[in-house]
Amino acid sequence: MFTHETTYRVRYADTDQMGYVYYGHYARLYEIGRVEALRSLGVDYKSLEASGVMMPVYELKCRYLQPARYDDLLTIRTRIGTLPAARIVFEFDVLNADGLRLNTGEATLVFVRRETNRLTVAPPDLLERLRGYFVGAVR
Amino acid sequence: MFTHETTYRVRYADTDQMGYVYYGHYARLYEIGRVEALRSLGVDYKSLEASGVMMPVYELKCRYLQPARYDDLLTIRTRIGTLPAARIVFEFDVLNADGLRLNTGEATLVFVRRETNRLTVAPPDLLERLRGYFVGAVR
Amino acid sequence: MFTHETTYRVRYADTDQMGYVYYGHYARLYEIGRVEALRSLGVDYKSLEASGVMMPVYELKCRYLQPARYDDLLTIRTRIGTLPAARIVFEFDVLNADGLRLNTGEATLVFVRRETNRLTVAPPDLLERLRGYFVGAVR
Amino acid sequence: MFTHETTYRVRYADTDQMGYVYYGHYARLYEIGRVEALRSLGVDYKSLEASGVMMPVYELKCRYLQPARYDDLLTIRTRIGTLPAARIVFEFDVLNADGLRLNTGEATLVFVRRETNRLTVAPPDLLERLRGYFVGAVR
Repeated sequence: MFTHETTYRVRYADTDQMGYVYYGHYARLYEIGRVEALRSLGVDYKSLEASGVMMPVYELKCRYLQPARYDDLLTIRTRIGTLPAARIVFEFDVLNADGLRLNTGEATLVFVRRETNRLTVAPPDLLERLRGYFVGAVR
Repeated sequence: MFTHETTYRVRYADTDQMGYVYYGHYARLYEIGRVEALRSLGVDYKSLEASGVMMPVYELKCRYLQPARYDDLLTIRTRIGTLPAARIVFEFDVLNADGLRLNTGEATLVFVRRETNRLTVAPPDLLERLRGYFVGAVR
Repeated sequence: MFTHETTYRVRYADTDQMGYVYYGHYARLYEIGRVEALRSLGVDYKSLEASGVMMPVYELKCRYLQPARYDDLLTIRTRIGTLPAARIVFEFDVLNADGLRLNTGEATLVFVRRETNRLTVAPPDLLERLRGYFVGAVR
Repeated sequence: MFTHETTYRVRYADTDQMGYVYYGHYARLYEIGRVEALRSLGVDYKSLEASGVMMPVYELKCRYLQPARYDDLLTIRTRIGTLPAARIVFEFDVLNADGLRLNTGEATLVFVRRETNRLTVAPPDLLERLRGYFVGAVR
C-alpha cells in the first residue's frame, strides 16, 4: 500500500452559508491529494497528459462525517491500495488539525489515450514507481 | 416513486482543460436537481432552513459515463425512491440533449435541527407532500 | 446600444459563510449574461470557437453594492455599448427580484485566432448582427 | 508599503477548456493572497470575524495579461499601498515560475460590524500592525 499526505487551507471560496465546506469541493481536495501523491512518486500528471495519457475520473464516492470549516488546515491522506491495471483507485481521508476525520471517500480513474480517445492500461512508468509499495503481493 | 426533471446549460466555468465538465461540478448539478425537485412539490429549501431544519449531505456517489461538454443543455433527472425518515436519498441521472445518459449518482442527506445541531427526522410537511407518490407502499 | 436580460437562481454552491454569493462567482454570472446575450443575437459562442476564434477575457471590473443571497432569482442585464473592433466590452447589472441592483461591472474580451494564438478583430458575422443596434452611430 | 508573497499550484479544477485558468478563479487567488498577507502580519481573518468585524469585497479589478495554466506554481504578490481607514485596498500581481506577470488587479474591502450590519473603520489591531510599514507617511 502507498500512502501520502498533503495539507489544504480552507478558503472563504470553499464555504457555504451553513458555514461548512460545500460538499462539491471535496472533489478538488481529492484531486489535490492524488496529484500530489503521484508527484511524490515522481509521476507528474501534467507530463503524463503531455505524453498522451489522460486520467478522467470514472467514479467518486464521498462520505461527509463532520463539517470542515473556514481556515481549517486540513490534511488530505491519499492511499493506493492495489497496483493499478485498467483502473486506479485512490482512497482519501480528510482530517482537521486535531486529527479528527471529517470526510472519507474514493475516486476511481481510468486511463485514456488522448489520440484515440480509447481506454488503455496504466502507463509502465507509473507501475514501475508503484511496484515497490506492493512487494510480496501475489501477481 | 417521485421523479422530476430540470435543465442545465454547461458554462465555460464548468469545463476543464480536457474539454469536459470537471468531475467536481456534478455536485452542483445534483444540488440543482434536488432543490428544484423539492420546489416542484411545494417544498422550498430556503424556507425549510429558515424554519430551523438544515439538510447537509451525508453521502455522495457519482459515476461518470460520458463527458458533458461546453454549452450542452443537460437534463438533470431526480428521483426519490423511498419515503424519507432519518435520511432522504436522491438519485440522479444527467442526460445530454440526445437523451444519452452521461452521469448517474445519488446523494444521501440528513436532517439537522439548526438550534441544537442534532439529527432529526424528515419534516412532516415534506412527508405529507411526498406521501401521495408512495401510495400502496406497505408502511 | 444592445441590451439583453437573463435570469439566474442562486445556489448553495454560490454562497459563502457570510451568507452572500461569493465575490468570485459574479464572473460566472457575467459569463452567462454575455453568452446568452450573444445567443439572442444568433451568435453561438461554441460555434465561434469551433470556427477558430476564441474570446478570452482581458479585463474584469466588478462592484458589489448589496449581497445576493441563497435562492435569489437574479436578473443579469448585459449591455454592449459600442460596436466591437479589436475588443468587445460587455457591461453588466445584476438585480434581485425586487429590481434592486446588487452588482455592476464590465468585462472586456479580445478576439484570438486559435491557430496562431494571435489577436484578431471581431468576426464579420458578429458585427453584422450587432450593427442594427448602432444605426446612426457615425462610423 | 507592505508586500507579501505566497504560492499557489494551479489545479485541474481551475482550468477551462481553453487550457487557461478560468477568469473567475483569480478572485480565489486574490483571497488567498490577502488572507495570507494579513496572517503574516499577525492578523487572523477568522478571529477578526469572530470578534464581530467582516470584510466584504466592495470592488474587484482584474487584468489578464497571459494565461496561467494547469500545474503552474504561481506566486501571488499582495501589496497594501496605503494605511486603511474606511476601506482597505489590496493590490495583486500573479506571476508564473519564470517571474512573468500573468495577471494584475486589486480588491477594495470594507469593514462591516456584523451585529449592526453597518460600515465601520479598520480595527485598531490591524492598523497597529500595519503602521510600521508606513512610517514617515504624513497622516
